[in-house]
Amino acid sequence: MDIATLRSANPDHWKKATAIRALTLDAVAAANSGHSGMPMGMADVATVLFENHLKFDAANPDWPDRDRFILSAGHGSMLLYSLLHLTGYADMTLEQIKNFRQWGAITAGHPEYGHAKGIETTTGPLGQGIANSVGFAMAEEMLRARFGRKLVDHYTYVIAGDGCLMEGISQEAIGLAGRHALGRLIVLWDNNNITIDGKVDLADRTDQVKRFRASGWQVLEIDGHDPVAIDGALTEAKKSKRPTMIACKTHIALGHAAQDTSKGHGALTNHEQLIAAKEAYGWPYGPFEVPADVKSAWEAIGKRGASEQAAWAERLAAVSAPRQAEFTRIFEREAPAKLSARIKAIKKQISEEGPKVATRQSSEMVLEVVNPVMQETVGGSADLSGSNNTRSGDMTVFDVDNRKGRYVHWGIREHGMAAAMNGMVLHGGIRPYGGTFMCFTDYARPAMRLAALMKIPTVFVMTHDSIGLGEDGPTHQPVEHLAISRATPNTWVFRPCDTVETAEAWELALTSKQTPSVMSLTRQGLPTLRREHKTKNLTAQGAYVLADAIGKRQAILLATGSEVEIAMAARDLLQADGIGTRVVSMPCWELFEDQDEAYRKRVLPGGPVRVAVEAAVRFGWDRWLYGERGRRDKGGFIGMHDFGASAPAPTLFKEFGITAEDVAAKVKSLL
Amino acid sequence: MDIATLRSANPDHWKKATAIRALTLDAVAAANSGHSGMPMGMADVATVLFENHLKFDAANPDWPDRDRFILSAGHGSMLLYSLLHLTGYADMTLEQIKNFRQWGAITAGHPEYGHAKGIETTTGPLGQGIANSVGFAMAEEMLRARFGRKLVDHYTYVIAGDGCLMEGISQEAIGLAGRHALGRLIVLWDNNNITIDGKVDLADRTDQVKRFRASGWQVLEIDGHDPVAIDGALTEAKKSKRPTMIACKTHIALGHAAQDTSKGHGALTNHEQLIAAKEAYGWPYGPFEVPADVKSAWEAIGKRGASEQAAWAERLAAVSAPRQAEFTRIFEREAPAKLSARIKAIKKQISEEGPKVATRQSSEMVLEVVNPVMQETVGGSADLSGSNNTRSGDMTVFDVDNRKGRYVHWGIREHGMAAAMNGMVLHGGIRPYGGTFMCFTDYARPAMRLAALMKIPTVFVMTHDSIGLGEDGPTHQPVEHLAISRATPNTWVFRPCDTVETAEAWELALTSKQTPSVMSLTRQGLPTLRREHKTKNLTAQGAYVLADAIGKRQAILLATGSEVEIAMAARDLLQADGIGTRVVSMPCWELFEDQDEAYRKRVLPGGPVRVAVEAAVRFGWDRWLYGERGRRDKGGFIGMHDFGASAPAPTLFKEFGITAEDVAAKVKSLL
Repeated sequence: MDIATLRSANPDHWKKATAIRALTLDAVAAANSGHSGMPMGMADVATVLFENHLKFDAANPDWPDRDRFILSAGHGSMLLYSLLHLTGYADMTLEQIKNFRQWGAITAGHPEYGHAKGIETTTGPLGQGIANSVGFAMAEEMLRARFGRKLVDHYTYVIAGDGCLMEGISQEAIGLAGRHALGRLIVLWDNNNITIDGKVDLADRTDQVKRFRASGWQVLEIDGHDPVAIDGALTEAKKSKRPTMIACKTHIALGHAAQDTSKGHGALTNHEQLIAAKEAYGWPYGPFEVPADVKSAWEAIGKRGASEQAAWAERLAAVSAPRQAEFTRIFEREAPAKLSARIKAIKKQISEEGPKVATRQSSEMVLEVVNPVMQETVGGSADLSGSNNTRSGDMTVFDVDNRKGRYVHWGIREHGMAAAMNGMVLHGGIRPYGGTFMCFTDYARPAMRLAALMKIPTVFVMTHDSIGLGEDGPTHQPVEHLAISRATPNTWVFRPCDTVETAEAWELALTSKQTPSVMSLTRQGLPTLRREHKTKNLTAQGAYVLADAIGKRQAILLATGSEVEIAMAARDLLQADGIGTRVVSMPCWELFEDQDEAYRKRVLPGGPVRVAVEAAVRFGWDRWLYGERGRRDKGGFIGMHDFGASAPAPTLFKEFGITAEDVAAKVKSLL
Repeated sequence: MDIATLRSANPDHWKKATAIRALTLDAVAAANSGHSGMPMGMADVATVLFENHLKFDAANPDWPDRDRFILSAGHGSMLLYSLLHLTGYADMTLEQIKNFRQWGAITAGHPEYGHAKGIETTTGPLGQGIANSVGFAMAEEMLRARFGRKLVDHYTYVIAGDGCLMEGISQEAIGLAGRHALGRLIVLWDNNNITIDGKVDLADRTDQVKRFRASGWQVLEIDGHDPVAIDGALTEAKKSKRPTMIACKTHIALGHAAQDTSKGHGALTNHEQLIAAKEAYGWPYGPFEVPADVKSAWEAIGKRGASEQAAWAERLAAVSAPRQAEFTRIFEREAPAKLSARIKAIKKQISEEGPKVATRQSSEMVLEVVNPVMQETVGGSADLSGSNNTRSGDMTVFDVDNRKGRYVHWGIREHGMAAAMNGMVLHGGIRPYGGTFMCFTDYARPAMRLAALMKIPTVFVMTHDSIGLGEDGPTHQPVEHLAISRATPNTWVFRPCDTVETAEAWELALTSKQTPSVMSLTRQGLPTLRREHKTKNLTAQGAYVLADAIGKRQAILLATGSEVEIAMAARDLLQADGIGTRVVSMPCWELFEDQDEAYRKRVLPGGPVRVAVEAAVRFGWDRWLYGERGRRDKGGFIGMHDFGASAPAPTLFKEFGITAEDVAAKVKSLL
């Protein structure tokens, strides 16, 4: 690459792009860690994007109608931090850049959502950003259909690397975007031919251009260092009715001794080489120094969208008050006022009627009354709509000719679904929930973890939540998946025992602002155990006394979901033998943990023996089996000790020893 | 579809294929659950494959040189069970078919590896089979290069559905197979255009033919009900130097009222419709009845490979005794005799020298001495070779022109790597291990679970196993991943504290026959704590006393991996204050759980306070914090309570309160 030619061909552009490269080199050198090569390779593309195309206003970073810029190749975080600093985002000070990757700084190793304005999503785990972007673009289509182009009319831009495209999730994202003709989605592929181990060719020879076209994308191919070509491609991409991938041929670590090598991917900290690169750039400035003319040129870019933002704000102010309030409400993740009443009403009705239904059906019953008053919900399933019971009667299917559709057929793409749902939440204005079998938590895990880390309230509807699914067998029977989600910080795992608890769980999930929820729901029918109506949301306490001991309290049974019925039957057996037995339903461990100690001790007092019942592994349960002064030899567990088996569900519960008789016998053995 | 034409065009073929369809209909009807449509749609393809192409001998199902048949669309399990029964596999009796999906039967809802001969891998979670198949085909190439065509010379056939191809993992598999020109891999795509929710078009419009070609595959397109076309395509596929995908246009639930509909995907149990389908087939037989001529035609197919098998056995008998023994040994998953001595030698050397190294480097040091004496190991990494330290000096890179290469650059494909490694183990003759960052356990999870479920000893090398990785931040810092793997049945999670324990862990992982291993290894340097050489493998006990209390034992510190160093330093602090403190290293909880109670009590006696130290979440630790009669108020935990952060590692340990001082203070607060 002839740097001199690049410098002289477009000197103004070159200076702006070089400011990114220089800040990157300096920040990585100061941190003595990080990834220099990608920002240096993609600086030209990003500069043209921000200068001529991206609709944004650095002074109004939360403007709902801004274009979204997603750095899927999150290791190149200094590209994003440089852009935010240079364009004048208030929180991205030079001090923050200097503290790249240090404790307390907002400039983490990979971009962390919530740390700084302008970070639209947390990236780093590869492929997540490009899959998030499908959700961003779908949300834009849905909201544009709902509120009109005057309020919603923007693009989603993504920078993705070879790593993103090699991850399987990228195929799920590409397939979805192509299927739904998401023309507002534009992916800029950093085609530098280098990965950590060496050249891409070591592991992949896929023709990415043909691959994207096979899924219905427009593909453009350009020199990623030619600002004119970049500008032309972006202009063309914006006209397309199909999603566009722009293959940008770039040189990783452009201008550095490590250019075009895998060494260039990582931290380029050698002082002499750094100085040499800056010399080649014609950048005679000290560390972190950006000359005033370059900084002011960048700041002008940061203000470019100000008038457009102001015009948009006027348009919002001009719409009717209820519409304005609705728009604002959904972007603030506020639940509608009507939600609480709807939940209370269905709880009352169910407590009175006492139906026996699977909690996946309970969930559908709740969605039927909630979705009509909560127009921001978007349902969906990874090709298990009828099994997950995720579509309520009022929801039409999202499609190219029905952008108002609120139900998404995600296809057999659990991972892509989860990541795209995250993108919808991050975009704002949408509250998505999506279903699959609980066992396939495994497929969706990387995106579920990121929802928890990003503190966003995505809802994962996981049905068929135990051996209770029966004949499909151990490949489909979760035994460790409750533990997996419970072990994850900032995740609410709801395992309701009946329709009333299911309604309460949904209320919590749909009013959550910062915590994702896992709804663990049964395939098999369950009785209504909450027959006495209480307006209070008992699930909000995480655990509560469902039935207390009659006579002296000798035992406490702890259970969740389908096993609460078993615990109640065991209580009958034990009480018949004169053993006073309390049953504690524990639909959400995390919320119980959040209660004060006094409440927890009231629910789980020391003294009685404790037996937990859950058709899953014991892992994690010991937390609840002993009181503060309780003894291990007074705690027991009835549940799974290995993977399940293929047989009708009643047979499985019997063969695996998860019955009321087994629970009663365990209590007696401990007394 | 005109059934009459199909019947009359190839009556002999038709009868054989119809036997599959009829058995499927009958078994699903008897179970009142299952998936009828796929076996009915793919019966013609499978019949031609088994009749004319698949090299197998039903009487010798473990013949190492058989072709492998993988049903990636595992829900169509009755296709496989029918084929095994009809061709005369001894264990697949008619009784088993009649007990489809029942307790104790080998005919589970989805094919379970180990239940019956001829089930090459467990499938059902979609996309796994096609990704396994890449490992099968790579294993074949490697072993053919090593032992020659006289002993190894076979194909891998896969039946995959739309679901498999929509899962992201399929792209990882397709990319790998194309990159490595796995010409012995032949995928038969059941192109029926139907998924559970409806037509494929609901969720995907990807042109699969173009997609496979973009990754370097040969693609053939045929009518999947035309035996001549099927035969021709298979013949052509076998000649190819590239992997071949045969797009078989089929009708799901052929001949049934539910043909070509999503209803046809599931259980077709309606009696009248079943009878009508059999009538259309010209199949006037009762449930589970296969006429003698059809059965004997199928049994002849089952014996077709007998002479070839016998010739192969003669060729094996003719090779040199050591070579024969080696071939047999590796297929029996027996470790070489030299392994144990090599492990002991490095343990002794390390105990004497006492180096300070990261356990990922320890792991490399072990591999350097083990790999040369264990030629069946195959290393690799998902594009983190230099970070995972997975390549030993003797390993060359597997490539098109170096099939003897024992190191695989898997690319940025953690999921595909894990599934392909499973395929290698299942093929036999290979003991693969592969690396990524521990946090990306999430990406590999579905395949890691299947290794546990299938009882195969795949080794997952997970480095950068805590906040100790430092600046990359919370997206890369596992906190819940130890819990995730520990909660999974039949999984050994090794978190060694130094090079000696790392060597012991590798010995266990490489001699395991039925349990996969997770090697949780540090990025940061750790001192050698085992300075006294012991030939015995202490890690095999799961936990042991690393340093005992001096004076009265008042406290026990439990720790794993990098935190054992912290526990030892805390012990020094406590002993200086006269508090007798034992340190228990717990490199493998599962193996400790397997010890007898007496041993566990010797290591963890009741009485002293217990404090666990691990730079991960507490979830699961309560199991070890209280003795049988121990009390909760005498147990404490020092570790993570939320996600990590981006900063240098020493800062993180200090800020998150995971230091010797914190541990000592916790002990004192409990005394």
